[in-house]
Amino acid sequence: MKVDLNADMGEGFGDWPMGDDAALLKVVTSANIACGAHAGDWDVMARTMAEAHANKVGIGAHPGFPDLQGFGRRRMTMAPESVANLVIWQFGAARGMAAAQGTRVRHFKLHGALANMASEDADLARAAYAAALRVDPDVILLVLAGTAQEKVARELGAVWAGEIFADRGYEDDATLVLRGRPGAMVRDPEEAAARMVRFVRDGAIHSNSGKMIPAACDSICLHGDRPEALAIARAVRAALEAEDVVLAPMEGRRG
Amino acid sequence: MKVDLNADMGEGFGDWPMGDDAALLKVVTSANIACGAHAGDWDVMARTMAEAHANKVGIGAHPGFPDLQGFGRRRMTMAPESVANLVIWQFGAARGMAAAQGTRVRHFKLHGALANMASEDADLARAAYAAALRVDPDVILLVLAGTAQEKVARELGAVWAGEIFADRGYEDDATLVLRGRPGAMVRDPEEAAARMVRFVRDGAIHSNSGKMIPAACDSICLHGDRPEALAIARAVRAALEAEDVVLAPMEGRRG
Amino acid sequence: MKVDLNADMGEGFGDWPMGDDAALLKVVTSANIACGAHAGDWDVMARTMAEAHANKVGIGAHPGFPDLQGFGRRRMTMAPESVANLVIWQFGAARGMAAAQGTRVRHFKLHGALANMASEDADLARAAYAAALRVDPDVILLVLAGTAQEKVARELGAVWAGEIFADRGYEDDATLVLRGRPGAMVRDPEEAAARMVRFVRDGAIHSNSGKMIPAACDSICLHGDRPEALAIARAVRAALEAEDVVLAPMEGRRG
Amino acid sequence: MKVDLNADMGEGFGDWPMGDDAALLKVVTSANIACGAHAGDWDVMARTMAEAHANKVGIGAHPGFPDLQGFGRRRMTMAPESVANLVIWQFGAARGMAAAQGTRVRHFKLHGALANMASEDADLARAAYAAALRVDPDVILLVLAGTAQEKVARELGAVWAGEIFADRGYEDDATLVLRGRPGAMVRDPEEAAARMVRFVRDGAIHSNSGKMIPAACDSICLHGDRPEALAIARAVRAALEAEDVVLAPMEGRRG
Repeated sequence: MKVDLNADMGEGFGDWPMGDDAALLKVVTSANIACGAHAGDWDVMARTMAEAHANKVGIGAHPGFPDLQGFGRRRMTMAPESVANLVIWQFGAARGMAAAQGTRVRHFKLHGALANMASEDADLARAAYAAALRVDPDVILLVLAGTAQEKVARELGAVWAGEIFADRGYEDDATLVLRGRPGAMVRDPEEAAARMVRFVRDGAIHSNSGKMIPAACDSICLHGDRPEALAIARAVRAALEAEDVVLAPMEGRRG
Repeated sequence: MKVDLNADMGEGFGDWPMGDDAALLKVVTSANIACGAHAGDWDVMARTMAEAHANKVGIGAHPGFPDLQGFGRRRMTMAPESVANLVIWQFGAARGMAAAQGTRVRHFKLHGALANMASEDADLARAAYAAALRVDPDVILLVLAGTAQEKVARELGAVWAGEIFADRGYEDDATLVLRGRPGAMVRDPEEAAARMVRFVRDGAIHSNSGKMIPAACDSICLHGDRPEALAIARAVRAALEAEDVVLAPMEGRRG
Repeated sequence: MKVDLNADMGEGFGDWPMGDDAALLKVVTSANIACGAHAGDWDVMARTMAEAHANKVGIGAHPGFPDLQGFGRRRMTMAPESVANLVIWQFGAARGMAAAQGTRVRHFKLHGALANMASEDADLARAAYAAALRVDPDVILLVLAGTAQEKVARELGAVWAGEIFADRGYEDDATLVLRGRPGAMVRDPEEAAARMVRFVRDGAIHSNSGKMIPAACDSICLHGDRPEALAIARAVRAALEAEDVVLAPMEGRRG
Repeated sequence: MKVDLNADMGEGFGDWPMGDDAALLKVVTSANIACGAHAGDWDVMARTMAEAHANKVGIGAHPGFPDLQGFGRRRMTMAPESVANLVIWQFGAARGMAAAQGTRVRHFKLHGALANMASEDADLARAAYAAALRVDPDVILLVLAGTAQEKVARELGAVWAGEIFADRGYEDDATLVLRGRPGAMVRDPEEAAARMVRFVRDGAIHSNSGKMIPAACDSICLHGDRPEALAIARAVRAALEAEDVVLAPMEGRRG
């Protein structure tokens, strides 16, 4: 058994830091690095990539909407062809940064509102993913398991990896329980850890109602923005190691 | 005899166009394409690269300071290591864009105040050029002939090409006559064309006082922002063709 | 009979001009001036206000979404309280600019996607208009006649003026015929002029099917971005003058 | 005896906080609030002003260069007339924000590199201050005591207040000891407090060598970005209160 642990990083901007990247880099095996549109500037990116590389953590491009003030969390009605150009621009910048550090970008994950929209709208997901593949046909698309993102990655014949969340509850159709509803959040580190072991072992999401839904549990999304989040991240890692699950940067699957 | 004709392009932003790129692409053999910091956004870049590629015009990255309102023409006291990251970010974005269009970035030319500063300050030039070479050791550095830019390109052992100006007069030390002074500008298309034929044929800059200064006349910088500029561009091309000078994207030289 | 002629202006940014403001300022009686978020920077604003003031044209603030690359035409899911702060920030900047020119901002008109959303969504319109009134309770709200914008302006007890379009056809419910449909655009200057005389004289919109809908025809929106638009603007002005309609900056109405 | 305590605030942007404004608002009597160019957006500004107003802290506009990534700390060669427009734009935005909160902007202080340049270059200081006075002739200019800023404020006949630093050492010509040199920083809260009592009581700066230089010690600049800075701020306030110095928002002086 094998799984990847990913987290968003490099989300500072200029003089403003965000999150505890140094601590997270000791826990995860893949880093999704902001590319300058919703967070992250050239200096933050360079620093974050150098640290990820030094920690043998797999590097991913994490493009978002061009909305610094809203951190890429606000939906924008951007034409699909412009989204395509936008992600090429950010992915290219990330690849240049990685090359300059003597490493490379292994994966590609959409951020925030762009990710949410692409998990619902296959046309938007297709615009973004096809664009990324035009830059690098071998990049691993990290998709929200069971959404339009996964569907499109399969259709495109891309290498992809499915992502599950350590700190969120699931509905019976494999979607996340909406924030604010009962069972939306998993806050207890031990509970989160036990869940993840179970998901990875079964190759399935277990919904809050008890339904088991086969899913590509290739990479677990962790956070480091609050002490509790970091505690969950560490507990998940420890539990997986205790079960002899191999922790390594995602490899991806095709079809 | 052989020479490249280059021009800055893709300098629109959003709904704001700039220059007559379509007309210039029929004249030049290389295009310096803005990368989103001082001008050019993802859509403008994609469009400009596609058109340059379709016209068999060599594509170059043209990074500048992050100053959209000032078009990259204002000097900024940016630390050299931040300049390095800044140009990597822009060069990377340009390379991603080019790859997505099925082509590649052949050359690298600094823009505006960043170019001016790098032509005076070898440390700044070194920061920028060494950074570009970390992304692509084979990229051709298009340098202002006879300046710190050329000196550093040689020191770094890079492939480089020297640039001369069709519409500017030169001092005896090969620097440009400052704008506003007599002889700063060459406004007559026929005069500009005759000068460029002479520079290329002699492999030398001819100063306004009549001094001949051997120089790497590899690429002639043209403009298309005004009808007069375009007239000069066309006259230069026509005169060089009449002299059987081969017009082709720059190849660069080493050492 | 009396009417105002308004147009969007000051929509350049940095080195990028837009539209023929000088020509429009000879035609209109009110100018909607961009405030730096979707277009217009401090220099463009200062220049445009000085010219509007010199031409005795009434000055309005024209705030939009913070989306320079999209010119404020893309919808963004911005929280109403953030929209409130956003328009206060832009309106305040415009007022400061006007004060520095020895004049003042008389009216307030939303731009682009923000205007479209506020014409459909009364909550959003209320957030924006109530915010503007907190800065200046006497500012004239220039509203799209017959939309949620008008409804909210009335509810708030604000001074407001209704806006009609010289170059657009109307449906029977006073909404604009959608672009792309037959009758959406009025392209003939004489036809546009005759329509506006009729609308102003009758105090009513005449729909494309011939229905007469009483409406606050206080201000006619003109454009100057293309030669045809300027021809329409001039024809509308000439026709109104020929009918002895008084052309003057909007005064607004209450209730 | 009377003095004002000021600090920079509202220096977050979007999701990125900065400093402990809530704690500082319990210590200072005036707040210099960023206006969106180098830090601070419409939401941060609105929040910060509301809190300052609720704490009866005097509100100031704190404009800087348009350089978010560099936090306004990088020098830019901006034309004086553009600097004038830039500060009008920011000051206007701040005034609109304050009006919307039912309060007003009492003072005006330049930020970062713009402040540094204006303390050396009287022409630049004049461009910025004359511009601010065109918006509000009664605004209090908070100037670095003894610099070109003070000189220009006097020349313009403006209301101004002189600023001294709690945590910095002074040379014999009343300039700050450059960072990195011995005696540049005052790190001990008790020492900083004793110094400030002495400066205010004597109406003079005491240089590190012991020279007493009469100066307008109207407002003491404090910081809250690090726990040590906050400790100094609190110690300065406590010491002044113990000496029965009245702490109140600056009033300014003329001539």
